Amino acid sequence: MITAGIVGATGYTGVELLRLLAGHRRVEVGLVTSRELAGTSVASHFPNLRGHFDLDFSPPDAAALAGCDVVFFATPHAVAMKSAARALAGGARVIDLSADFRIRDIGCWEQWYGTAHACPELVAEAVYGLPEVNRERIRHARLIAVPGCYPTAIQLALLPLLEKGLVDESRLIADAKSGVSGAGRKAAAAYLLCEASESISAYGLAGHRHHPEIIQGLEQANGGRPVGLTFVPHLTPMIRGILATCYAPVREPDACGSELLQQVFEERYRDEPFVQVLPQGEFPATREVRGSNVCELAVTWLEARSMAVVLAAEDNLVKGAAGQAIQCMNIMFGWNESEGLAGIGLLP
Amino acid sequence: MITAGIVGATGYTGVELLRLLAGHRRVEVGLVTSRELAGTSVASHFPNLRGHFDLDFSPPDAAALAGCDVVFFATPHAVAMKSAARALAGGARVIDLSADFRIRDIGCWEQWYGTAHACPELVAEAVYGLPEVNRERIRHARLIAVPGCYPTAIQLALLPLLEKGLVDESRLIADAKSGVSGAGRKAAAAYLLCEASESISAYGLAGHRHHPEIIQGLEQANGGRPVGLTFVPHLTPMIRGILATCYAPVREPDACGSELLQQVFEERYRDEPFVQVLPQGEFPATREVRGSNVCELAVTWLEARSMAVVLAAEDNLVKGAAGQAIQCMNIMFGWNESEGLAGIGLLP
Amino acid sequence: MITAGIVGATGYTGVELLRLLAGHRRVEVGLVTSRELAGTSVASHFPNLRGHFDLDFSPPDAAALAGCDVVFFATPHAVAMKSAARALAGGARVIDLSADFRIRDIGCWEQWYGTAHACPELVAEAVYGLPEVNRERIRHARLIAVPGCYPTAIQLALLPLLEKGLVDESRLIADAKSGVSGAGRKAAAAYLLCEASESISAYGLAGHRHHPEIIQGLEQANGGRPVGLTFVPHLTPMIRGILATCYAPVREPDACGSELLQQVFEERYRDEPFVQVLPQGEFPATREVRGSNVCELAVTWLEARSMAVVLAAEDNLVKGAAGQAIQCMNIMFGWNESEGLAGIGLLP
Amino acid sequence: MITAGIVGATGYTGVELLRLLAGHRRVEVGLVTSRELAGTSVASHFPNLRGHFDLDFSPPDAAALAGCDVVFFATPHAVAMKSAARALAGGARVIDLSADFRIRDIGCWEQWYGTAHACPELVAEAVYGLPEVNRERIRHARLIAVPGCYPTAIQLALLPLLEKGLVDESRLIADAKSGVSGAGRKAAAAYLLCEASESISAYGLAGHRHHPEIIQGLEQANGGRPVGLTFVPHLTPMIRGILATCYAPVREPDACGSELLQQVFEERYRDEPFVQVLPQGEFPATREVRGSNVCELAVTWLEARSMAVVLAAEDNLVKGAAGQAIQCMNIMFGWNESEGLAGIGLLP
Repeated sequence: MITAGIVGATGYTGVELLRLLAGHRRVEVGLVTSRELAGTSVASHFPNLRGHFDLDFSPPDAAALAGCDVVFFATPHAVAMKSAARALAGGARVIDLSADFRIRDIGCWEQWYGTAHACPELVAEAVYGLPEVNRERIRHARLIAVPGCYPTAIQLALLPLLEKGLVDESRLIADAKSGVSGAGRKAAAAYLLCEASESISAYGLAGHRHHPEIIQGLEQANGGRPVGLTFVPHLTPMIRGILATCYAPVREPDACGSELLQQVFEERYRDEPFVQVLPQGEFPATREVRGSNVCELAVTWLEARSMAVVLAAEDNLVKGAAGQAIQCMNIMFGWNESEGLAGIGLLP
Repeated sequence: MITAGIVGATGYTGVELLRLLAGHRRVEVGLVTSRELAGTSVASHFPNLRGHFDLDFSPPDAAALAGCDVVFFATPHAVAMKSAARALAGGARVIDLSADFRIRDIGCWEQWYGTAHACPELVAEAVYGLPEVNRERIRHARLIAVPGCYPTAIQLALLPLLEKGLVDESRLIADAKSGVSGAGRKAAAAYLLCEASESISAYGLAGHRHHPEIIQGLEQANGGRPVGLTFVPHLTPMIRGILATCYAPVREPDACGSELLQQVFEERYRDEPFVQVLPQGEFPATREVRGSNVCELAVTWLEARSMAVVLAAEDNLVKGAAGQAIQCMNIMFGWNESEGLAGIGLLP
Repeated sequence: MITAGIVGATGYTGVELLRLLAGHRRVEVGLVTSRELAGTSVASHFPNLRGHFDLDFSPPDAAALAGCDVVFFATPHAVAMKSAARALAGGARVIDLSADFRIRDIGCWEQWYGTAHACPELVAEAVYGLPEVNRERIRHARLIAVPGCYPTAIQLALLPLLEKGLVDESRLIADAKSGVSGAGRKAAAAYLLCEASESISAYGLAGHRHHPEIIQGLEQANGGRPVGLTFVPHLTPMIRGILATCYAPVREPDACGSELLQQVFEERYRDEPFVQVLPQGEFPATREVRGSNVCELAVTWLEARSMAVVLAAEDNLVKGAAGQAIQCMNIMFGWNESEGLAGIGLLP
Repeated sequence: MITAGIVGATGYTGVELLRLLAGHRRVEVGLVTSRELAGTSVASHFPNLRGHFDLDFSPPDAAALAGCDVVFFATPHAVAMKSAARALAGGARVIDLSADFRIRDIGCWEQWYGTAHACPELVAEAVYGLPEVNRERIRHARLIAVPGCYPTAIQLALLPLLEKGLVDESRLIADAKSGVSGAGRKAAAAYLLCEASESISAYGLAGHRHHPEIIQGLEQANGGRPVGLTFVPHLTPMIRGILATCYAPVREPDACGSELLQQVFEERYRDEPFVQVLPQGEFPATREVRGSNVCELAVTWLEARSMAVVLAAEDNLVKGAAGQAIQCMNIMFGWNESEGLAGIGLLP
């Protein structure tokens, strides 16, 4: 049994971490911090946790974190980068769900996040927490940068094609649809039920912070060569879920086919506990993974257009955030990778 | 053609007024004020109005209102009471969609709204804008207090029974379900899609501001005698609509029956353009009146319980607010009461 | 490890049973039957179960059931009554989620369900599976009749008041709001997204099959004396959840108060693992129990009306069906009552 | 005043036609047919029409249609092709909202719709009812084939780019998101609220009937030269609305820019009453056109990817069906093109 601390557990990522950790047999949550809610009970803020946690929010306090074996940061960006070093110095392993350690190019990060990076030296050490790519490095990491929600879905969708050199990497498109929980729990008019339900819209065409993160991952899969990706996210009228529809023009159409693509995906993810490659002709739906850590993938060959279309569905709060964080923790501590993550999607 | 001004048209009631007035052949909107949005275009704030209004928000300005024949206040409470007198002095008729002039008992108003009333002298003059009760008085009024959304539905549901003395007025219950737009457009966490969709909950059990307003109307229908009402509102996961389920114990069960109740309702509302009494065995659904000014009513006799159950469905932004305001205006100016209000509910 | 069979697992109750049983450490699902889907895989019908069950639907077959230690019937009414006897004869314990064994008065059942009862002799033996009332009898039962979804919420809300004789049992009202999954998975136009979303409506005013079931339970709590209940169910635009708003006139208002009511509820449910009595001033929301077996209760004293209002929220597919069935099974087999039911509500 | 008949007005397209025609000052609906509902009142089937139409459904009857000046077919495919000739012979003009006369290549139509075409001779005469392309031909047409919902949005999005030869027409992508009403009112499990809400999924990757219709229109805009389009439709958890996100690689990136693209779109649609080209940096949302006949367009230049992204939002039941049909009628009869179509989108 180890002790976990959660910094900033007042948003949807935080409550999801708590929900999943409640069912984890090797972790006890010893500390949950929130500057704003300090002194109030976790269950009064998140009533679904009533009876599962008898904890109050603590004020953020480096000393308290020292007693933790693992510290999760579920904070907005630019918070973890100021505290992670102290948590590490106290002996904890750190799993950051924010963007602070995801981008290796510090200048790029600073440009997109609009502030100076407070801890560039840890960026080099941090391991990008996508188990399907970095499982071995995660095992030995002290500091994990958990991928963003869109980047998880889009990378899992496109990696097999890039790794095999099957597609024209300069003309990739990811049309992604996200539920509203991706925007967090902040009280902004755009995310009111009356504004966001019964409507769909695109946003971020001028640039989205997840774009450089996705590019970084795709370029690595592409042997370090540049990748060109058009990425358009959409706000979709549902609470949870991301569906990424990815379009990849195939390099050698005559050598391609449904069987080949299916085989490439099945082989790539054969041993992955949380990636399901659907049979030809079946397509993912976000409801099928609601609340679960699974990412569903389906690849379709459109011969007339020489195009591979890959669909990826995940729960943005689980495989796209808290679930992936726990998956990384399980790997880091040498446990069964599925511990605490066996929950089945809630359907209907 | 008259000129209308709208004060504070930045919320859902305001945009609904504009939507309906755009189709009104006798009114031109000359002025729309907002302190916060002054100088920006109405259409940029409410994109559905693009092409229909070429107006910018003006700063609130009593002088400008002087050019209006009618002024609508679509403001939070405690605003109209400070400005209505000047608008009236300028020659305009005033239609207030807020609560400022609804409650005749100033002390009661001040208790529920937590502030001193700035203009008690106008409260006496103001006419409560429920056409089904006050049509004649509305015709001659200078100042209309448009009823609240819950009070409209619940009064229309219970008035016929009280007027006929059919029910035990001390034991009435109104269990009301409202869409989230009833809470307005303010950015509060409770009304985020992620908080308010896929859930239903009660609120306001300790007391709701619409309760004294409903009581005032019911007691008037009851010949001035006291009425006892248990009122429980519920936040329902939809944008628009109120359904009120009203329970009224019948005084003389042996003399009661479905036919009698049906007849009482049909007679009461026979000439009402915006009240539809459904046939026995049909029940209202809020979707049937989405976007329309209609209030649907159905009365059911539960013989075994000596109970009349009355269901009322309305669109809280139309018959419960902006539509009723325009209905009052039509009456005040002697026009066809349905002018601008012929729009049919959007189904599906 | 025991073996469970599920008869008719093609609806929402069935998939929910499977979801919960997948996480149950003492049960293996050996058999899932469906006449219609026989030969197809369970996971192809319920994609959320992919990777959790490697089972095909079998045709209904009494012989196969013989190998089961427990058989769940997740069938429409009038099916279990024809097969339960054989399953029992084969040595299995039977947990019926349909209505077949819920009503002890055979004539009453036949009237409401419109068919002759095929197995009245088992009705007498069957135990009504509401652990909060019948825990001891469940422990020794061969045959459990799992309560309906509305009856669970409404009985839990009203039992404490009746058992203590605090309220006028002749004038109870239950205004209940259910998500659409309560209607099952049948393809009926009324439950299409385009018909059922963005709207709320009442139904069943002429009589609902759950009414006699609720009455039977309430009368038992009332010492066998008659109970009068007005019950109006509502179709609410959400997938899961029931909120019951119950109105109970208090007999001796002068002796009543918030503290008393709160104390009565807390004492009644102190040791119940799945009933949460909320503190005064907090109200349940169905989202707080989405996917969990918890029933949230809140009692409010409306002094001016001499009325106790009790709110009950549950997930109709869990505490209102599959979860309660598993809770009963845990009791029957002497296991920890929470085994397989520790899942936390999915929020948001 | 002319008389209109509607054949098959029992689905969502039919009720929307009736809603819009109720407000049309030059048309009286004289006849509404339905084999299934003959003899029942229109308002009992569509309660939002109560008080607006005092009509019963008639059985389909060629003779009755003879009295109509215009006949709308709101039928499934393969119905209008059998009856249109007789309606035309009776002197009516015919506006078909189904697919029967949309595709000029009879073989292609037969392949996609799986039946022999009963009336190929009228296909040649029929005018494709997209006013933004065929206004003059519509004016003189006897028979209009109203475009499909996806084809309307996608053609309006891509026409300006093809007409100007700005993009590589061999590599177009349309990622389209539709509300569930696009599937009609048929009782299929996939469209139940419990299946279709809170989820998004792609479908039709193997081929969608709207694909050849879109290609036909795009190729015409492309001077008859072939066009290559990847089209992926998505089922989106909302009632109404289509958002098409279209990706078009620009031929000469160095000569392109935001200003040029904006200018091309603004010029192309300058005089169109129902196409709104949004300013740079504003993006459409389907809620902004809910219930209105407007199609919103926004074009964005992604310089780094040499890509034009065009967003199109429409209400699939209005501009994508019934509204466009009425727009065509207005043109055919020489009326103001906006007659009956001035309704503003319902927001929120």
